[in-house]
Amino acid sequence: MKLAGLKPKHFLWKVEGRIARVQLDRPERKNPLTFESYAELRDTFRDLVYADDVDAIVFLPNGGNFCSGGDVHDIIGPLVDMDMKGLLAFTRMTGDLVKAMLNCGKPIITAVDGVAVGAGAIVTMASDIRLATPEAKTAFLFTRVGLAGCDMGACAILPRIIGQGRAAELLYTGRTMSAEEGDRWGFYNRLVPAEQLEGEAMDLATRIVSGPTFAHGITKTQLNQEWSMGLDQAIEAEAQAQAICMKTKDFERAYRAFVEKKKPVFEGD
Amino acid sequence: MKLAGLKPKHFLWKVEGRIARVQLDRPERKNPLTFESYAELRDTFRDLVYADDVDAIVFLPNGGNFCSGGDVHDIIGPLVDMDMKGLLAFTRMTGDLVKAMLNCGKPIITAVDGVAVGAGAIVTMASDIRLATPEAKTAFLFTRVGLAGCDMGACAILPRIIGQGRAAELLYTGRTMSAEEGDRWGFYNRLVPAEQLEGEAMDLATRIVSGPTFAHGITKTQLNQEWSMGLDQAIEAEAQAQAICMKTKDFERAYRAFVEKKKPVFEGD
Amino acid sequence: MKLAGLKPKHFLWKVEGRIARVQLDRPERKNPLTFESYAELRDTFRDLVYADDVDAIVFLPNGGNFCSGGDVHDIIGPLVDMDMKGLLAFTRMTGDLVKAMLNCGKPIITAVDGVAVGAGAIVTMASDIRLATPEAKTAFLFTRVGLAGCDMGACAILPRIIGQGRAAELLYTGRTMSAEEGDRWGFYNRLVPAEQLEGEAMDLATRIVSGPTFAHGITKTQLNQEWSMGLDQAIEAEAQAQAICMKTKDFERAYRAFVEKKKPVFEGD
Repeated sequence: MKLAGLKPKHFLWKVEGRIARVQLDRPERKNPLTFESYAELRDTFRDLVYADDVDAIVFLPNGGNFCSGGDVHDIIGPLVDMDMKGLLAFTRMTGDLVKAMLNCGKPIITAVDGVAVGAGAIVTMASDIRLATPEAKTAFLFTRVGLAGCDMGACAILPRIIGQGRAAELLYTGRTMSAEEGDRWGFYNRLVPAEQLEGEAMDLATRIVSGPTFAHGITKTQLNQEWSMGLDQAIEAEAQAQAICMKTKDFERAYRAFVEKKKPVFEGD
Repeated sequence: MKLAGLKPKHFLWKVEGRIARVQLDRPERKNPLTFESYAELRDTFRDLVYADDVDAIVFLPNGGNFCSGGDVHDIIGPLVDMDMKGLLAFTRMTGDLVKAMLNCGKPIITAVDGVAVGAGAIVTMASDIRLATPEAKTAFLFTRVGLAGCDMGACAILPRIIGQGRAAELLYTGRTMSAEEGDRWGFYNRLVPAEQLEGEAMDLATRIVSGPTFAHGITKTQLNQEWSMGLDQAIEAEAQAQAICMKTKDFERAYRAFVEKKKPVFEGD
Repeated sequence: MKLAGLKPKHFLWKVEGRIARVQLDRPERKNPLTFESYAELRDTFRDLVYADDVDAIVFLPNGGNFCSGGDVHDIIGPLVDMDMKGLLAFTRMTGDLVKAMLNCGKPIITAVDGVAVGAGAIVTMASDIRLATPEAKTAFLFTRVGLAGCDMGACAILPRIIGQGRAAELLYTGRTMSAEEGDRWGFYNRLVPAEQLEGEAMDLATRIVSGPTFAHGITKTQLNQEWSMGLDQAIEAEAQAQAICMKTKDFERAYRAFVEKKKPVFEGD
C-alpha cells in the first residue's frame, strides 16, 4: 500500500523521502479538530501500518499553532445534546486516534509551536518524540470545559512521560505547561526556535528513516507492549523481539559495514 | 453525609468553602502519628467518599513541621513486642490509610514545611498535589529503623513520581530529599515561602473546588484505575469515563458559558 | 555459600567488607562483553542470592571506561550467521543477566566512567543506584547495529527511570546521553569526579551494608514485584513484606539503640 498519493480532505499530507508530513489546516482558528478530521486522521494512522512508502511521520504546526483541540462549535455543541450511545461512539473515536498512532508501527515526531491544547495536547503526548518552540503552550484543559482529565489515555500516558505528580496537577487544573516546563520535565525532547522547527523535525525524521526501520517498528511495538508487563515477562518479550531483528538483513548490513569500516546503509528488511 | 461537624480526637479538622483542612496536632513533637491518629485518619478519608460538603482536602503542617512519622515510643516500641497477627493488622491499617486517600474521590493537596518523614513522607506521596517550603525535609527513612523501603506503597508509588533510580536511592539509604531536589524531581509541584504556604494551598484548593468536581472525582479514579492497565485498555476505560462526564450538567454549563462569552460556574453535577 | 573465594575467568572480582567489587577486564578495548563473560556474570549474580558473605555489589569501570557492550567480532559476527534457535538462546542469556541482577536480592551500585554503551548501558540501567563521572557517555545504541531498542528489558525499564519521552528518543536514535543529561534526567543519581568515583561508590556501598541488609533485600524484591501490580495490590503486598521485616532482630536493634540514644548496629537478621 502506498500513501504518497493520499489526498485527505481534512488535513495537509505530503510524503517525501519515506517521511509523511501531516498538518492540520485551519490556521486562522489555530487548527481545531472536527468530527471529520478525527476520523480521517484515525483512518490514515491505521493505514500507515501497511504503507510501504512511509517509515516515519512528522506532525507539524500550521500558521504558528499546532492544534486548538476539539472545536467548541463543531464538536462541543453537538456533544451537549448527544445521547450516551453517540457520546461513547465519539470518545471511542478519539481514543481510536491515539490507539492508531500508538499502533501504526512507525515513529511519530511531533513539532509544536503556539497552541497545543485539549486533543492537540493529546496528539502531542501520543507521539514518540516531541520538539517545541519556546512559544509552545500545552494544556490538558479538559477540566476547563467541565470534563475529566482522563481523555484519550491522558491519565495513563502523561504520568509516564512527566511523572505522576506533575501530570496530576496539569490534569486537575487544566493549566498551561510552558515550553520551558515541558522541556525540563521531559515532555518535550528539545526546544528549537520557531524558524528552525520544521527543519529540525525533518532532520530527525531523516536520521530515523535512514536507520533500520523494521527494527524501529519493533521498538515501537515493544514500548507499547511492555507497558503493563511484569519485569521478567518484559525481558523474555525482548529476547524474542530482538532475536527476530537479528534475522534481518539490516543487522547483517551493519556488521558488514563495520568490518569494512564503512557507514551502514539500512534498507528496512 | 456532612463532614463539617466532624470532631476528630487526634487531628485538627475544619471544613470551609467545600474544602476540608487537616492538620496533625502535636507540634511540640513535630506531629507524630499514633495508632489512634492512623485509624481516625483512615476512617475520615473513607467517609470523605460520601461527604456532600467536601470537594477537596488540604493537609497542612503545624508549628513548622508536617509529620515526624510513626512515633518511636507510641508505635515502634509496641511493634517490637507484637506477634505476626498484630503486626500485619498494623501494616494493613497504615496501608489502608493510603488506600483511603487514593480512593476518597477528591483531590488532596498537601503542603509540607519542615519535617515530613516516615509515614509523614508517605502521606505526602499519597496526595495528588504537593507544595513545600524551601525548608521541607522529606525522608523515606524506614531503613534507618531497620525496616524495608516498601512501606504503605512506597516501592510502587514513589518511582512513578520521581523515577525508579531516584526512588531506589531514597528507599535504600533513607536519606533526606531536600526541598530543592523534591521540586526538581517532580515530587513537589512548587516551592513556596513558609509564610505563603497555607494561602497558596488554599488558593489552589479553591480553584479546584470551583471546577467540575464530579469530573475531578473521575480524574482521580482513572489515575488510580489505569495504574497497571495496558495502553489499549486504559484508552477504552477513558472513553467510557469521559462519556459519563459528557452527561453532566457541568459540561453543558461550560458550553453555554463559552457561547455567551462568560466564565462557567460549575456545580459539581 | 561464600563468594569471597570466587575466581571468575572473565572479570575481576573481590569481596571485602561484605561488598563484592566487579570489573570487566579488557580495558584496552573498553571492556567489551563476550559470550563467556555474559554467562559467567549471569551465573555469579544468580549465586549472589545465596552468598552469605556479600550484601551489596559495586560494579566499577576499568581503565577509564565502563563497558563497550557486545564485542563486534566476538559476538556480532557469530550472531549474523546463527540460526533462530541459537539467536534466541543468546538473547535469553543476555536477558537472564538482567533478570539475575534484578533478582539477586542485594543492592547493586554501578559507577560509570567513559563509555557505557549497548549491553554496558543495559548493565548500568539494571543496577539499583548509578554514579558517573562527567565524562560518562551512555548509549543504548542497538539501532546503530541494525537492531531494535528492546534489548534486555530497555523498553520496559529505561522509561521508568528517565520518562517515556526521553527513553523513546534514546532508543530510536541510539544517540549518546551525556553525563549531564543522565544526572538531570535521573538516570545517574550523582556525578562524581573520576578520581573520587571508586571511593564514593564504595562509601555508599559501605553505608548500605551497614544498614538492615535483610530489609534491603525485601526492598529490592518489592521494587521488582510491584512493577506491574495494581495500587491496592501493591499496598497489600507491602503490608505483608513490612510485617516480615518487623519480625527481624534488626528492627528491635534499631528500637533499642534509639531508646538508649545510640546508633543502631545492624546484623542483617
